[in-house]
Amino acid sequence: MINQLIANIKKTEAPIVVGLDPMLNYIPEQVQKKAYEEFGETLEGAAEAIWQFNKEIVDKTYDLIPAVKPQIAMYEQFGIPGLAAFKKTVDYCKEKGLVVIGDIKRGDIGSTSAAYATGHIGRVQVGDKAYAPFDEDFVTVNPYLGSDGVNPFLDVCKEEKKGIFVLVKTSNPSSGEFQDQLIDGRPLYELVGEKVAAWGEEVMGDAYSYVGAVVGATYPKMGKALRKIMPKAYILVPGYGAQGGKGKDLVHFFNEDGLGAIVNSSRGIIAAYKQEKYQSFGPENFGDASRAAVKDMAEDIKGALENRA
Amino acid sequence: MINQLIANIKKTEAPIVVGLDPMLNYIPEQVQKKAYEEFGETLEGAAEAIWQFNKEIVDKTYDLIPAVKPQIAMYEQFGIPGLAAFKKTVDYCKEKGLVVIGDIKRGDIGSTSAAYATGHIGRVQVGDKAYAPFDEDFVTVNPYLGSDGVNPFLDVCKEEKKGIFVLVKTSNPSSGEFQDQLIDGRPLYELVGEKVAAWGEEVMGDAYSYVGAVVGATYPKMGKALRKIMPKAYILVPGYGAQGGKGKDLVHFFNEDGLGAIVNSSRGIIAAYKQEKYQSFGPENFGDASRAAVKDMAEDIKGALENRA
Repeated sequence: MINQLIANIKKTEAPIVVGLDPMLNYIPEQVQKKAYEEFGETLEGAAEAIWQFNKEIVDKTYDLIPAVKPQIAMYEQFGIPGLAAFKKTVDYCKEKGLVVIGDIKRGDIGSTSAAYATGHIGRVQVGDKAYAPFDEDFVTVNPYLGSDGVNPFLDVCKEEKKGIFVLVKTSNPSSGEFQDQLIDGRPLYELVGEKVAAWGEEVMGDAYSYVGAVVGATYPKMGKALRKIMPKAYILVPGYGAQGGKGKDLVHFFNEDGLGAIVNSSRGIIAAYKQEKYQSFGPENFGDASRAAVKDMAEDIKGALENRA
Repeated sequence: MINQLIANIKKTEAPIVVGLDPMLNYIPEQVQKKAYEEFGETLEGAAEAIWQFNKEIVDKTYDLIPAVKPQIAMYEQFGIPGLAAFKKTVDYCKEKGLVVIGDIKRGDIGSTSAAYATGHIGRVQVGDKAYAPFDEDFVTVNPYLGSDGVNPFLDVCKEEKKGIFVLVKTSNPSSGEFQDQLIDGRPLYELVGEKVAAWGEEVMGDAYSYVGAVVGATYPKMGKALRKIMPKAYILVPGYGAQGGKGKDLVHFFNEDGLGAIVNSSRGIIAAYKQEKYQSFGPENFGDASRAAVKDMAEDIKGALENRA
């Protein structure tokens, strides 16, 4: 699947991923209204609004982008109907040829991580039948429990040729509280980065590993250091746009081959119609606003990579 | 809810929690067969088997225990039907007067953690209506992202009088890989423990905080140290029984008042009928085997606390 992701990136010439993290207040009035007319102001109604919102954005952007990253929390907050909308979104994006990164940040003791891996990127056995319950292509994984919380994901990656992105240095302001703590003079996130490199050696695609890393756009210097520590790991970079990261901050997340990183934007794309810059589209054409924002983001990153020092 | 948990513990005289972590191979043949006859060998069939299995164990043990801890991964691996069985289990246990600890180990950047908190222990707004999608009493939280991944849970705890248990030192063999790393001579888990104490000060119940900690039974010395660092935090202790922890290892997780810790056993209780010790019950009476195992576990811990040095 890492090979597929890279093929998609080369085809679209856009190392970007659209974060499908719908909040109800991003969803235009008319979409919500229609969903509530059909399902009432219920969890089902909210889930329908989310699904219709996602579908429009995917329809208007899928030919420009290699991948999407639905954040499961935004669906889980609407309970079972919300999670059903997550699943519907995953399936639809895959039909459209997009690589789907499930942003689930799971991680637990071995047997429990195995259950998460099975449910999200693997297949579960029921009697004589096997099912792929969520069937994302990649998922994000939290490393706090160490190797035996990660290994079950590696096993499933091997079997299914799928992948993971392990949290190394996250984009949020307080990420340094634990991740930056110095151990023998080196920050914890570098130790985690070394582990990512080691885990990744076992499960290599053609040029990059099935095991990638999450490193926030908001910490470009650390991204540069981590790039060297994990040369074969694709870096999933959140924090572009709304969280403050810009194209020129991102060049050192990439390798010299122009590959090695994929930059996520969520709000900046899916709620583009709310920005002054794209206001003229109006809420009724929110999908077109997202398309314009995708093009601008791709240009910004392309330009930055071309002008790389 | 921490006050309720403590009231339940005092009433049952059993500081224990039953981990409802059903794997299909724990579920007796006859329960699976019946579910598959009704729903086929499908995700729905597996979910029905899990639900019937849980119900029997809850019916046979609820009067002896203060709380249950369903591990959501074991449900999530069966997709949407599995998660519906999780929700049904949560609701049923609450009807029976049990405190429900959702073992979800979520944790993300602020806005995303807010969505998890809303979905699991809070209420989500849809138009003019509000819903409590999963409605557990407590959830477990992963601290790797620092304070701004935890704060949204604290906000919801305050509003809803619910609680969290933050992963501090987990029970698995490789937990030390990152958690034991020394920072200025002190292990990372102690820093996390100090944060737990600080976060907990904002949200106090009568004697203990709404913010507890997870510390594995398999690391009793570290438990002793952490007990002192977080005097007002209830410690949720996994790793008893199947993972190797014993009653006498656990006394130092408790405060002098005999409170302050609640010990989880999953496989040791729910799959008790598979152990030699409880074999005579037979698979048809698996619930009675679980009841016997609960009694033995409560005795083991009670005895250990009475003989505390």
